[in-house]
Amino acid sequence: MTTDLDDEIDRSDPEGEIARRADAYRNWGRWGEDDVLGTLNFIDDAKRVAAAGLVREGRVVSLSQRFDTDGPQKGWRRRTNPVHTMTDTGTDAERANQGFPHGMGGADDVIAMPLQCSTQWDGLGHIFDHGNAWNGRRAGDVVTSDGDLVTGIEHAAAVVVSRGVLLDVGRHLEPATGELPDGYPITAADLDACIQAQGPSATVGRGDIVLVRTGQYTRARREGWGDYAGGPAPGLSITTAGWLSRTEIAAIATDTWGFEVRPNEFDVPAFQPLHQIVIPNLGLTIGEMWNLDELAEACAEQGRWDFLLSAPPLPITGAVGSPINPVALL
Amino acid sequence: MTTDLDDEIDRSDPEGEIARRADAYRNWGRWGEDDVLGTLNFIDDAKRVAAAGLVREGRVVSLSQRFDTDGPQKGWRRRTNPVHTMTDTGTDAERANQGFPHGMGGADDVIAMPLQCSTQWDGLGHIFDHGNAWNGRRAGDVVTSDGDLVTGIEHAAAVVVSRGVLLDVGRHLEPATGELPDGYPITAADLDACIQAQGPSATVGRGDIVLVRTGQYTRARREGWGDYAGGPAPGLSITTAGWLSRTEIAAIATDTWGFEVRPNEFDVPAFQPLHQIVIPNLGLTIGEMWNLDELAEACAEQGRWDFLLSAPPLPITGAVGSPINPVALL
Amino acid sequence: MTTDLDDEIDRSDPEGEIARRADAYRNWGRWGEDDVLGTLNFIDDAKRVAAAGLVREGRVVSLSQRFDTDGPQKGWRRRTNPVHTMTDTGTDAERANQGFPHGMGGADDVIAMPLQCSTQWDGLGHIFDHGNAWNGRRAGDVVTSDGDLVTGIEHAAAVVVSRGVLLDVGRHLEPATGELPDGYPITAADLDACIQAQGPSATVGRGDIVLVRTGQYTRARREGWGDYAGGPAPGLSITTAGWLSRTEIAAIATDTWGFEVRPNEFDVPAFQPLHQIVIPNLGLTIGEMWNLDELAEACAEQGRWDFLLSAPPLPITGAVGSPINPVALL
Amino acid sequence: MTTDLDDEIDRSDPEGEIARRADAYRNWGRWGEDDVLGTLNFIDDAKRVAAAGLVREGRVVSLSQRFDTDGPQKGWRRRTNPVHTMTDTGTDAERANQGFPHGMGGADDVIAMPLQCSTQWDGLGHIFDHGNAWNGRRAGDVVTSDGDLVTGIEHAAAVVVSRGVLLDVGRHLEPATGELPDGYPITAADLDACIQAQGPSATVGRGDIVLVRTGQYTRARREGWGDYAGGPAPGLSITTAGWLSRTEIAAIATDTWGFEVRPNEFDVPAFQPLHQIVIPNLGLTIGEMWNLDELAEACAEQGRWDFLLSAPPLPITGAVGSPINPVALL
Repeated sequence: MTTDLDDEIDRSDPEGEIARRADAYRNWGRWGEDDVLGTLNFIDDAKRVAAAGLVREGRVVSLSQRFDTDGPQKGWRRRTNPVHTMTDTGTDAERANQGFPHGMGGADDVIAMPLQCSTQWDGLGHIFDHGNAWNGRRAGDVVTSDGDLVTGIEHAAAVVVSRGVLLDVGRHLEPATGELPDGYPITAADLDACIQAQGPSATVGRGDIVLVRTGQYTRARREGWGDYAGGPAPGLSITTAGWLSRTEIAAIATDTWGFEVRPNEFDVPAFQPLHQIVIPNLGLTIGEMWNLDELAEACAEQGRWDFLLSAPPLPITGAVGSPINPVALL
Repeated sequence: MTTDLDDEIDRSDPEGEIARRADAYRNWGRWGEDDVLGTLNFIDDAKRVAAAGLVREGRVVSLSQRFDTDGPQKGWRRRTNPVHTMTDTGTDAERANQGFPHGMGGADDVIAMPLQCSTQWDGLGHIFDHGNAWNGRRAGDVVTSDGDLVTGIEHAAAVVVSRGVLLDVGRHLEPATGELPDGYPITAADLDACIQAQGPSATVGRGDIVLVRTGQYTRARREGWGDYAGGPAPGLSITTAGWLSRTEIAAIATDTWGFEVRPNEFDVPAFQPLHQIVIPNLGLTIGEMWNLDELAEACAEQGRWDFLLSAPPLPITGAVGSPINPVALL
Repeated sequence: MTTDLDDEIDRSDPEGEIARRADAYRNWGRWGEDDVLGTLNFIDDAKRVAAAGLVREGRVVSLSQRFDTDGPQKGWRRRTNPVHTMTDTGTDAERANQGFPHGMGGADDVIAMPLQCSTQWDGLGHIFDHGNAWNGRRAGDVVTSDGDLVTGIEHAAAVVVSRGVLLDVGRHLEPATGELPDGYPITAADLDACIQAQGPSATVGRGDIVLVRTGQYTRARREGWGDYAGGPAPGLSITTAGWLSRTEIAAIATDTWGFEVRPNEFDVPAFQPLHQIVIPNLGLTIGEMWNLDELAEACAEQGRWDFLLSAPPLPITGAVGSPINPVALL
Repeated sequence: MTTDLDDEIDRSDPEGEIARRADAYRNWGRWGEDDVLGTLNFIDDAKRVAAAGLVREGRVVSLSQRFDTDGPQKGWRRRTNPVHTMTDTGTDAERANQGFPHGMGGADDVIAMPLQCSTQWDGLGHIFDHGNAWNGRRAGDVVTSDGDLVTGIEHAAAVVVSRGVLLDVGRHLEPATGELPDGYPITAADLDACIQAQGPSATVGRGDIVLVRTGQYTRARREGWGDYAGGPAPGLSITTAGWLSRTEIAAIATDTWGFEVRPNEFDVPAFQPLHQIVIPNLGLTIGEMWNLDELAEACAEQGRWDFLLSAPPLPITGAVGSPINPVALL
């Protein structure tokens, strides 16, 4: 099933192209007027029981990048890399200068970081469309300086565990390198072809969490971060909005900074138009900067692409995003 | 199986009591001289496959407290509550003052927090015994101002998923209230009796992650934090060191600030003696400030006490602790 | 010169009492429509030359409280105490584990703090009156999530040096203790009487920076912080708005958390009504949490109450407040 | 007066060249064994009275760079640019969503920053020589994870006001551009020649605070930060150690990241050898990243180079550096 919205776009009219898709796929009210979860509602308990049945090896793969100062951030909109500092150290403890009795010593630490500095979920309060937030609320009624008063990421603390499906589009389209070039827009047809190629275990449906590997992270680790944070990147085309809607997936994540293709697919100024469609209108939870390389190898070895995925956010009250360490259990 | 180390202690000699147990239960070298995981090594893939088999309902319970400024911390050793602030808000987005095109608006946020301010794992570099870190390394060779150079919590990123067992000692010993009084030292006998009372699903063995509910968190939420962070609390007795060793559990967590009973069980100055025994000597990973209340209700309703537990730390490079959102899948 | 606005207030009508004074003393447009300094404009170069002439001893007195975790803040509106942590230490340097050549070692540090956690200036963007900021601008046009885009404290970086005058109202009204009781509202008459008692060197006029000592800080240091941050305190009465206007002072600071008397002088809910009058309407710069004790002793010993005051804010771009170390040169 | 230590160095022996000068100029014990101020002791009250006499115009010049995310830092040793975020904004206040009565609205903010991210003083605990701190103390006895327990910058809170002298070496040596090339080592002869050229008001002596303008900051502002933080730069030669000693100046500051010439003057690995000599051995307080451009213009216009300089650090307990806004009063 495809629609004309899966096809070519008018590259001079981002506002119109966004509006057409927002209108076509908007989920406002679908889960009641008080809803704070959006498409995460597609996950039900039966889905999780079935997903637990996918655990055959007992192997855990972490899908998180490291959190440290050597990350990709360069300060855009005050997004820096994490700063981790010690308040007590082993050097001090060995010197026994900490004031503890009976040979006790300790180390302790603090961190300061943007919530979306590394592997993360975007919360539903992260993006707005013409001043509207998820479910049709006004943006200013939802997220103030006090944080997200309505759809804060803490609401998803006991939700984000489901069947995960890896779509290794990088490997599918570029078998030699496994890496899509920067600027490559992944289409619905690409996603469907990748599923077909990967076989039945890659089927995508209601409540699944889809992980799309582009290979850009692999390249960034090999060649240096460069403009990984905000620069050109492969990613989902704005034309995938329909696919994201009709598959009824719960969430989607990529190994790139921004989920969608960059530069964005317009000849006039545009900024993350697919975000503008899917977060406030569909209520779709998006993950970014995931590390999918080890998982891709494991899935390819086994020839199966689904697994139990546990990726609950930290319940930071009122947050519009959360650092996470998602784990796949195979 | 019990030993005399499970019995009474000399309340005037913390250093001696610590040393006796450290000597008796020390695991240094057990997993090789390069080991960075300690008792987490007890988790194997078969354990996780079996644990996945415990998922029958598909229900997820978050075991995390909230991360926000209204937490229990009062500044002890610079441990403050998290400070979450916005770098972009919906109020601004609705006013369209953010400089984005085509009706796009965004919210973004940052956090500054001690890594052990709320629900967390202690890393193996968190505590030292007479200048010795886990596996016999010198503390100053392990944790400097640059962080934990050897046993940083990032090493456990793909490890901490296993069978979890809840021991609701609060309910077992205080059926009326479900809450142990502050200062109550939980003994090995208490733990064994609780297991016996809860039945076969509460059996504890190699590779399990044991969650001990004391009920103190329930009381703190009802009555206010008070001295939850560092004050008197129920918790494990120093005499449980043997139990923690012979059960070969992978990790243990409680609903209290500090895992072990406070005030500590000595008549002379002492500070967290059980930590000093089990972290650097056994290599035991300890969780603190978990929220076990909803899980306790669910387990009691179902009459079973084990589940799949997914609690991977954030891979913060060199951290000696990590904020977490542990989830139980029932 | 006094007015009826110096007299009794209707304790049931904060909004009316604020409006009467805001209307009477509003300085909008006085220094042009682009003004970003407010009453700091009263300081001119001649004023500073004269102030430099007050330096007779060459003694410097710091008027700053300490910046550290042991401060008065308790988390109100996310105002915490500063968290200062080391990124390199001497312990490490002495161990020579830092990677530097030729015996070099270093220590380095970071801080996270609210800008108004300790001794500070309120910037002109700190307070609004019915959505209006200083000089009649709309609050949302001035201070967004990006900070104060118009009147940021960086604009005062080269301004805040002038003649300072200490009014030791605590000592004047309570000669035995030097400390006003919490809740004591300092009136215009009190200020004038204090000036009279202190003599000619205490005369207050255009461009001066007035420092009012209540003695509450002295009490807090002796007895513990208690509710120093936001609790009951002596301070300026709302009825001093006229005095603050007609004296044409450049700025004023106190040794209390909040400059004005607390509880505020109304029988219905009210919050810092004098701030609401003087910051957005008069354009008055206010300092809080200054340490005036050593200065008070020095002035009393010498029998003179004016000095050169240097208190430039840190030019933090877009800040609505700044931590400072004001110094008096006597 | 010059010495052979003012001359050529052995470029293969940084350790030796450092040791020769450290031995020759070491001030340990000069101000008693408890001293925490070093050369700041050269400032006396008479000095400040005389300095106040230099205030003729009443003009204030701020010597601070801005503190914001658009600064020069790139993460070296976790030195990032400041992150300033709002906890309350005018956008919210105008929307009246803050919960205050009677039309009150507020904005508030927080900052997280390395203490040496922008214009700053190095504290005496910032640098060590073979594990020795200022006055011969062991580094590990002075600066632990708890901060500088002995020579913390708070001790200088009421000290750093004195006569300032600007030496515009950039203008002196490069009259056409006013900018020294990166890598240019300023010698004692250069400093003396600059003083001579500038005339009697540029004479340098006991208790003065010397400001050396290289012009690199001018270039960085024009061309972009580039490698301003840690890259090649003009700066003081290691051979100026004698000059810094025999002039008995209280402190010195430059418009560069690192005070001394970079790359350092050796053919083998070296790192800031002049720091290693002057901070722990002479007890010299060093300022870096000052903005001297406006001051240079003002001094050139007036044909005089000295002024009252007020540059007290923030009294951050235990800090080894402090952000500052130094002001020159002319």
